[in-house]
Amino acid sequence: MELLVINPNTSAPMTALVERAARAVAGPGTRVRAVTPAMGPASIESHYDEALAVPGVLAEVAAGERAGVDGYVLACFGDPGLDAAREVATGPVVGIAEAAMRTAMYLGRGFSVVTTLARTTGRARDLAARYGAERACLGVHACGIPVLDLESDPDAVKKVVAACAVALEADGSDAVVLGCAGMAELCAVVSAELGVPVVDGVQAAVLAAQSLVAMGLRGPARGEFAPPPAKPYLGLMAEFTRG
Amino acid sequence: MELLVINPNTSAPMTALVERAARAVAGPGTRVRAVTPAMGPASIESHYDEALAVPGVLAEVAAGERAGVDGYVLACFGDPGLDAAREVATGPVVGIAEAAMRTAMYLGRGFSVVTTLARTTGRARDLAARYGAERACLGVHACGIPVLDLESDPDAVKKVVAACAVALEADGSDAVVLGCAGMAELCAVVSAELGVPVVDGVQAAVLAAQSLVAMGLRGPARGEFAPPPAKPYLGLMAEFTRG
Amino acid sequence: MELLVINPNTSAPMTALVERAARAVAGPGTRVRAVTPAMGPASIESHYDEALAVPGVLAEVAAGERAGVDGYVLACFGDPGLDAAREVATGPVVGIAEAAMRTAMYLGRGFSVVTTLARTTGRARDLAARYGAERACLGVHACGIPVLDLESDPDAVKKVVAACAVALEADGSDAVVLGCAGMAELCAVVSAELGVPVVDGVQAAVLAAQSLVAMGLRGPARGEFAPPPAKPYLGLMAEFTRG
Amino acid sequence: MELLVINPNTSAPMTALVERAARAVAGPGTRVRAVTPAMGPASIESHYDEALAVPGVLAEVAAGERAGVDGYVLACFGDPGLDAAREVATGPVVGIAEAAMRTAMYLGRGFSVVTTLARTTGRARDLAARYGAERACLGVHACGIPVLDLESDPDAVKKVVAACAVALEADGSDAVVLGCAGMAELCAVVSAELGVPVVDGVQAAVLAAQSLVAMGLRGPARGEFAPPPAKPYLGLMAEFTRG
Amino acid sequence: MELLVINPNTSAPMTALVERAARAVAGPGTRVRAVTPAMGPASIESHYDEALAVPGVLAEVAAGERAGVDGYVLACFGDPGLDAAREVATGPVVGIAEAAMRTAMYLGRGFSVVTTLARTTGRARDLAARYGAERACLGVHACGIPVLDLESDPDAVKKVVAACAVALEADGSDAVVLGCAGMAELCAVVSAELGVPVVDGVQAAVLAAQSLVAMGLRGPARGEFAPPPAKPYLGLMAEFTRG
Amino acid sequence: MELLVINPNTSAPMTALVERAARAVAGPGTRVRAVTPAMGPASIESHYDEALAVPGVLAEVAAGERAGVDGYVLACFGDPGLDAAREVATGPVVGIAEAAMRTAMYLGRGFSVVTTLARTTGRARDLAARYGAERACLGVHACGIPVLDLESDPDAVKKVVAACAVALEADGSDAVVLGCAGMAELCAVVSAELGVPVVDGVQAAVLAAQSLVAMGLRGPARGEFAPPPAKPYLGLMAEFTRG
Repeated sequence: MELLVINPNTSAPMTALVERAARAVAGPGTRVRAVTPAMGPASIESHYDEALAVPGVLAEVAAGERAGVDGYVLACFGDPGLDAAREVATGPVVGIAEAAMRTAMYLGRGFSVVTTLARTTGRARDLAARYGAERACLGVHACGIPVLDLESDPDAVKKVVAACAVALEADGSDAVVLGCAGMAELCAVVSAELGVPVVDGVQAAVLAAQSLVAMGLRGPARGEFAPPPAKPYLGLMAEFTRG
Repeated sequence: MELLVINPNTSAPMTALVERAARAVAGPGTRVRAVTPAMGPASIESHYDEALAVPGVLAEVAAGERAGVDGYVLACFGDPGLDAAREVATGPVVGIAEAAMRTAMYLGRGFSVVTTLARTTGRARDLAARYGAERACLGVHACGIPVLDLESDPDAVKKVVAACAVALEADGSDAVVLGCAGMAELCAVVSAELGVPVVDGVQAAVLAAQSLVAMGLRGPARGEFAPPPAKPYLGLMAEFTRG
Repeated sequence: MELLVINPNTSAPMTALVERAARAVAGPGTRVRAVTPAMGPASIESHYDEALAVPGVLAEVAAGERAGVDGYVLACFGDPGLDAAREVATGPVVGIAEAAMRTAMYLGRGFSVVTTLARTTGRARDLAARYGAERACLGVHACGIPVLDLESDPDAVKKVVAACAVALEADGSDAVVLGCAGMAELCAVVSAELGVPVVDGVQAAVLAAQSLVAMGLRGPARGEFAPPPAKPYLGLMAEFTRG
Repeated sequence: MELLVINPNTSAPMTALVERAARAVAGPGTRVRAVTPAMGPASIESHYDEALAVPGVLAEVAAGERAGVDGYVLACFGDPGLDAAREVATGPVVGIAEAAMRTAMYLGRGFSVVTTLARTTGRARDLAARYGAERACLGVHACGIPVLDLESDPDAVKKVVAACAVALEADGSDAVVLGCAGMAELCAVVSAELGVPVVDGVQAAVLAAQSLVAMGLRGPARGEFAPPPAKPYLGLMAEFTRG
Repeated sequence: MELLVINPNTSAPMTALVERAARAVAGPGTRVRAVTPAMGPASIESHYDEALAVPGVLAEVAAGERAGVDGYVLACFGDPGLDAAREVATGPVVGIAEAAMRTAMYLGRGFSVVTTLARTTGRARDLAARYGAERACLGVHACGIPVLDLESDPDAVKKVVAACAVALEADGSDAVVLGCAGMAELCAVVSAELGVPVVDGVQAAVLAAQSLVAMGLRGPARGEFAPPPAKPYLGLMAEFTRG
Repeated sequence: MELLVINPNTSAPMTALVERAARAVAGPGTRVRAVTPAMGPASIESHYDEALAVPGVLAEVAAGERAGVDGYVLACFGDPGLDAAREVATGPVVGIAEAAMRTAMYLGRGFSVVTTLARTTGRARDLAARYGAERACLGVHACGIPVLDLESDPDAVKKVVAACAVALEADGSDAVVLGCAGMAELCAVVSAELGVPVVDGVQAAVLAAQSLVAMGLRGPARGEFAPPPAKPYLGLMAEFTRG
């Protein structure tokens, strides 16, 4: 089984981090490869960034299809382009926000999300509503660290732990979901510090995709998520759709 | 006051149609201009089409900002790129789905949406949930006509009227929302045939944007919808963000 | 086009204030007239006041019908008698709470309502639920000023600004809705002080009614909002229905 | 204990019917008296009728207060004036729609409402949402009989039974709620015919009010439902509030 | 009429307390008997306790059926075994949490629940959602006293009053629901101290069951709550079902 | 890693079937063992059956804890005793209904559940609400086959396929969830017949539990799901808790 983990931003170190996290949990029969798109924003911290990340994500899904990939993970907590990717892919596509939230729902009554910048909390709430986690998602909190500083800021761990502690207390939650692919390697330390389960979306999504493939499950070939009808594309998008 | 109506697909005849509908209701002091993006799909009938339409929409918003536009309308019933456009624009941005649904909510207890292809009905339901119309939107129905055939199919009017009649009966609704910018000029005939109010999103959105500008209302300059932080973009997206 | 703005309470200075606010945003082709009912409470600060305001409101709608009015605005934040008025009126009827909330929903993810007395906050929450703004309405706050003191209290502006600041902070909202027709002229100052969009329901409702008329939209002639069946009325209500 | 059952319409035969139904279930220590208001519509079949019934209802509550009544029932399925009556009354006030729905929720997973004219079904749905019965209320159906014909139409029983049978089948419900005080005496026959529990709101509300009084429970003396602040009333409403 | 109040735990003093509270409100024609199951936990403070209390509860319902009981009350705020009991009983079965919440909904816009240990608050929230009280239940608070200490702890009253005061302030609620059958006799003192209505579920449920019996209402004989199909049971459960 | 799959009913052939389905998808490093409780009903087709199955389930969890099991699956679509099992287990506990529904939510916009007897559909709807699948679960349908006839009825496959076809058409769903552990081996044939993804809860739950263990995730050691406080148990339950 081959899974492709797509980092929707163009920062290669983050792709490497995501790949490490993914491989740490994948089963013995699962090959996991992480890729960085050739186009898009260096990090995703606004609706604008997210919108412009989607073409690059879809290009990677198209490339994955040509390479016979069995399942996909979108490794950004906004799950950018998820619906469109499902139309393009033959196998299952899993977003890390949806996988993280669904995983956290197995662990107790409610969870808190701790994300990067405050302006991204709205998107996380939107996704919670969409994924049926509206009641379970007791709060979304920001730690105030920009995505690309997660690896360089020497106080990143401390700040994330502090934000998680505040979230657990304020929300009365049973678990924490880390709301950024760049936080994938912080789970263990946060969990150890605070004594609660901490969910990383990358690992949750890789295992969800692996499970779907193992069960032979993929989206339906008909209806809303069937392959998109072919049609003319103009300008940069023509260039894009030529691949 | 200058309003820019952006047709998210690249079909110029549809832009012309949208512009006629928009101008028919705009107030005397309002200049309305409709534009066709330089990049993107000929029509929007999938999540994939919608995702690849967004960069073209955002380019037009950026151009509108340079031209001092006061408010924007996104003239596709999926409201593609709405959140991102709100970050980029200084003035209000209104999607035709949100405006149509909020307008229909003034007219009675519940409305039916009649859209083009069945595969787009899911997106309409998503938007109804997002816009607080979940209880008011009593059903979403497809007439089975592809977007670009709305003008050429000689039976288009008949088919849309028939789909609306089915929807009104099945849903027990008080009004119909036409779920495609390409249906903008069908309101009068459907309403006359069926004796219920019929809402076109283009007109509803133009008037909503005009009203917001008249009241001096625009999104907040801070928080989630503040201008997106600047950062490097790669590949086609670098080309795109260079304008 | 002629719009009738009905002040549901019997205080003429408030009618004058409401008329000024309404005229300030109405389009060039729109005549706006505000009226004070001949019967009802001096101000509306309880469910009891609201209930006893409704006959006076309906009498003004009936008078408006005889005068050929095209659309109506109910200028009290409880939207008293809205459903009944829709049965009586030929043209659209818009409440200021519904218009304010729907307008605020174009401006960001969520808004706070700031109203007069604490005992009216429950009604505002009821209306938010009814209008599909349950998720968008992040909080309802009282400034503690009785309706009729809004014009006379020298500290009214200061108190309203303070309550809005508290609301924005507590709710994390993008916009403020002022929850009383008597606050119509405070929008500019509150917005300037706090740097967020502030919505006045009177202006929002006048523009919504104007837009509905411009599109030729009115409630359906059949079903729940058809004219009420004629029947005998007894006592004061017989006197009332004699007009 | 003295309970006052207020028939919100002005038809005395219906008051008599309601009183019979109420007395049939009241406990030995409970005196039940039903009254017809001196003002208002002969029957309530529109939002307009309901709005104009409320002053008469409130006058009876005020009279009840002077007479030392312990609890009130509002015997119209729209629960007209319920919030206002709660402000005026010292003891509990129970609407028949709320009591019927809450009672039906003890009997299984879901119930159907069968009401009089189709135009009243929207109000019943509104109330279901308000009372927390949104999930339990599986459908609202009309039998097509005007309120005042329920006693005179020789086919009334047959038509109501038929509408209930349709509702049970369509909704898969466990129980039926009869949605009009004028149907109070049909419960036994409908239940016998169809083999399901059938709830009459008048009896349910009388027993709910009796129970609240028995427990010494009444609304709080402070906050939203405290007595309304005194203030000037004009016109007919001045006459009204003089008593 | 004979009502059986089943104390789902095996502590006889609590059964006595519950019986006193029940008899204090039952009507003159109603015989109320409270029973302690022969098997189960001494108190119910976890999902585990609740699960193991259910067989004992069902045994008492079966015994009640043999004795011709007319209606049942389950006197533990988790309403353990309610659905199963409804299948077994011919007459109505009422849980104290459902009755307390539905009763509190007659008293204002929202209520707070004050329960024993913090770990039981999740169950109370679950039940609020199930009973349609999700919007009305503004908060669930723990007083920190284990169930069986309610009678022995000399500070119990003080602690419960304090927790109720905190709840009222935090939630802005109109009433308090005491979330444990062992608090049944605290209503009067809490209400007197805090000036708000305080609902005890035991009394609310006894009166609800009495009302249902008075109206001749019981669950439907068909469908989900029909008697369970007979089948083999193994082990302790075989012993149990032999009665 | 060792996973214990508990068949909550006492039918050994069904345990064998469940074990085969579970082992077919478990990863190479995962040992899966299925067990039949020593006490409880032969099959679970009522709330009563479910209640009496729970002690047997909890006994198996307790035995699993003594044996060092890493994770548990409850293989009945009612997820009996899930909350209680989570208090008792150190590792994760997954119900097949929750896993099936969460898995189906990855596959499209909405799914249908096809279960055994009509009287179990209510429980499935309850669980959908609890697990956040209320919007995604578009319908619950019964095929009319009792649980223990699924293996013996020669027409079982045909009937299940027919019920699934009806469900897909009626609900417009993207996928089917088979709502009984006894249907675990029907997925492939139903999917092949109908061309849509078909989810078996046993496989979904085994993979969910395996994934949780792989990530080191278990419920929190504190709060609602902490181990239940020790206390006296009486009667059969004393015998039970002695193990």
